[in-house]
Amino acid sequence: VTNDQLLTLVRDLRRRKARERRTLFVVEGVRTAEELLQSALSVRGALSTAAFAATERGRAILEGFAQRGTQLAEVSETDLDSAADTEQPQGILAVAETPRHSFESLATTIGSTVRVLVLDAVQDPGNAGTLVRTGAALGAAAVIALSGTADLWNAKAVRGAAGAHFRVPTLQCSAEELVRFLREQRIPLWGAAPHGTPIAAVVDPPRRLALAVGNEGAGLSAAVLRAVDRVIALPMAGGVESLNVAVAAGIALYALRP
Amino acid sequence: VTNDQLLTLVRDLRRRKARERRTLFVVEGVRTAEELLQSALSVRGALSTAAFAATERGRAILEGFAQRGTQLAEVSETDLDSAADTEQPQGILAVAETPRHSFESLATTIGSTVRVLVLDAVQDPGNAGTLVRTGAALGAAAVIALSGTADLWNAKAVRGAAGAHFRVPTLQCSAEELVRFLREQRIPLWGAAPHGTPIAAVVDPPRRLALAVGNEGAGLSAAVLRAVDRVIALPMAGGVESLNVAVAAGIALYALRP
Repeated sequence: VTNDQLLTLVRDLRRRKARERRTLFVVEGVRTAEELLQSALSVRGALSTAAFAATERGRAILEGFAQRGTQLAEVSETDLDSAADTEQPQGILAVAETPRHSFESLATTIGSTVRVLVLDAVQDPGNAGTLVRTGAALGAAAVIALSGTADLWNAKAVRGAAGAHFRVPTLQCSAEELVRFLREQRIPLWGAAPHGTPIAAVVDPPRRLALAVGNEGAGLSAAVLRAVDRVIALPMAGGVESLNVAVAAGIALYALRP
Repeated sequence: VTNDQLLTLVRDLRRRKARERRTLFVVEGVRTAEELLQSALSVRGALSTAAFAATERGRAILEGFAQRGTQLAEVSETDLDSAADTEQPQGILAVAETPRHSFESLATTIGSTVRVLVLDAVQDPGNAGTLVRTGAALGAAAVIALSGTADLWNAKAVRGAAGAHFRVPTLQCSAEELVRFLREQRIPLWGAAPHGTPIAAVVDPPRRLALAVGNEGAGLSAAVLRAVDRVIALPMAGGVESLNVAVAAGIALYALRP
């Protein structure tokens, strides 16, 4: 493809539908590009500015891409900004193939002890990205995004996750598909909501466990609340309505660690 | 003041220096305005659009302000956006007096058990706001921002904290001032860093404790690392470099709860 076609592709990939149809996503920013280079993902091409190539980290990244045979295109600052989804792309946009994960592939990796993090209509891409990062850091085998959740492959979500997308398997599905998989695998589903058992009172959490956190405003959906085996509650002092959803997930995964 | 003067004031308050000189800050967005109304803070004035006043929640907020004798000014969408610091001000900007807290006032509230959250050069205003919210939810008596930390009264930080600023005392000071206060109060200072003791191995945390979390990239500053009595480490599975700083603080405050 020509450099112009690559630019057009990156612009198109700001749309979720385009990302899903092409199974491609865009990496923006120096650090995320470095994480991409260290991953096994296939990189289709990279747009960068002359200023980026003039920095030490920039040169190292471009050399890394070149060694992998990635198409490199130098574009103007204006063109790069026109194709970026995050506020400061830092001179680099790379297109990579979205890793394909399925319940079948996930099933083969699940041992006697497992944690799965479920996002139930988490709307903000930044929160979704931080949740992928949190799940990865706390050892989740997968992060599952239910319908209504921001696209985990949105550039803001990818960037917010600091490379975690390249390590932890992520899946999108409906609540029904999730529940079927968890039943087959005998993995109980717990949900975080204010009316639940205080998490500090939970002793001996199950060795296999999926934990669902809900929408920033509305909490868990009716479908998930019907399906959960247990509801647990996070600490909430002095009338604070709720924790940020990623902070809540971090505390819950820590408190319920096997 | 005239409506034009109020608009000029709000615009000026986007600058940290102006907020500090005037000890005023700006609340943006429907939910944060509702939280402000429920707080004891003094509200100087509010700018809103006709569209905001036409909504049920908007009308209730404006009536609440009116009952408190707050100056109300209706402005155009364009003027409101020109004065806003967050991306979607949702038709409402209110100016309130920054609560004044000091180590002297804090000292009078500290009992035999206390938690203090310390932000050591946390740069992102969104993270700073989420940290205030996290500290409040986990029962911290105060959130202290050391030099280099984003202004906690930045509109993005205030909005990200979901009203927590109106409940938990916050202070800004240097590392030296903090250390002096903690020594006087016999409150040990612990810091979160990768080389520390795994937090799950900590038994019986002290009843009085200040916990410091560091910059998103660089971690704790040299000044804080020199001053800490103990370093603790957060979980970090599968090569993930670090948790988001607010998630890290949430897990640490939970794990070290009295």
